[in-house]
Amino acid sequence: MNIHIRKATRKDMVTVLDLVIELAVYEKEPDAVTATLSDYEQAFDERIFEVLLAEVNGEVAGMVLYYMTYSTWKGKMLYLEDFVVKASFRKKGIGQVLFDALKKEAIRKEVRLLKWQVLDWNQPAIEFYKKNKSIIEAEWLNCKIYFE
Amino acid sequence: MNIHIRKATRKDMVTVLDLVIELAVYEKEPDAVTATLSDYEQAFDERIFEVLLAEVNGEVAGMVLYYMTYSTWKGKMLYLEDFVVKASFRKKGIGQVLFDALKKEAIRKEVRLLKWQVLDWNQPAIEFYKKNKSIIEAEWLNCKIYFE
Repeated sequence: MNIHIRKATRKDMVTVLDLVIELAVYEKEPDAVTATLSDYEQAFDERIFEVLLAEVNGEVAGMVLYYMTYSTWKGKMLYLEDFVVKASFRKKGIGQVLFDALKKEAIRKEVRLLKWQVLDWNQPAIEFYKKNKSIIEAEWLNCKIYFE
Repeated sequence: MNIHIRKATRKDMVTVLDLVIELAVYEKEPDAVTATLSDYEQAFDERIFEVLLAEVNGEVAGMVLYYMTYSTWKGKMLYLEDFVVKASFRKKGIGQVLFDALKKEAIRKEVRLLKWQVLDWNQPAIEFYKKNKSIIEAEWLNCKIYFE
């Protein structure tokens, strides 16, 4: 199987949003995605995030969506917001290829760390991240305020 | 008491780093801050983060350090990385003025939400965020990988 990694372009935003919706269904929140294609295109134009896509025989099989942030303790930090492999492409090592590509991207961008979150019940993901020598911490709570 | 809020400039990075170190001491991790003044200046020049400073009689009393990110579910999202009020300036309402200024900034930047984290044992902060109608969630774990 030939897995090809490439940077997403503006034209890929439809595909990116489809993958996000697939992940939201997996995370039991199918109605939570209210961002529109136009939100994605605008934010992409403003360079707020970047995406690496994994393609298998020309078909998109998964993605990592990430952006640059700053750790006040360590310095520049890449943040992985969404990591999706399509259900039909799982168990083929595509996630590992994507994660390795993201780590390479983090090193290229000269960040001090890569950070992300995982749901506490998502055992397969937790196992994957442990296998990849990640530090996993439970002591932080997420907080948010929505604006209309 | 006259609390004045202003955007930090490059010259303020020394003060910002001092505040970060003060917060790290409070969070029981005094040696965790390895980012240098030059890291701060470089990231500030690259517009990776912004800072609002609170001044009382011309003296810096606290800050919020934040950056633009993207929620794949909701759209543009402001992320509050560090929120510090100097020990000698606490219990005077400065935190509330800073937090209100940050919410105003979030609305100005047309984000859909403001997000941040709090340590699960930091009860005064949790109370403050609850008073400010924040949603607080415990089900996400933080994950990270450091690079040399």
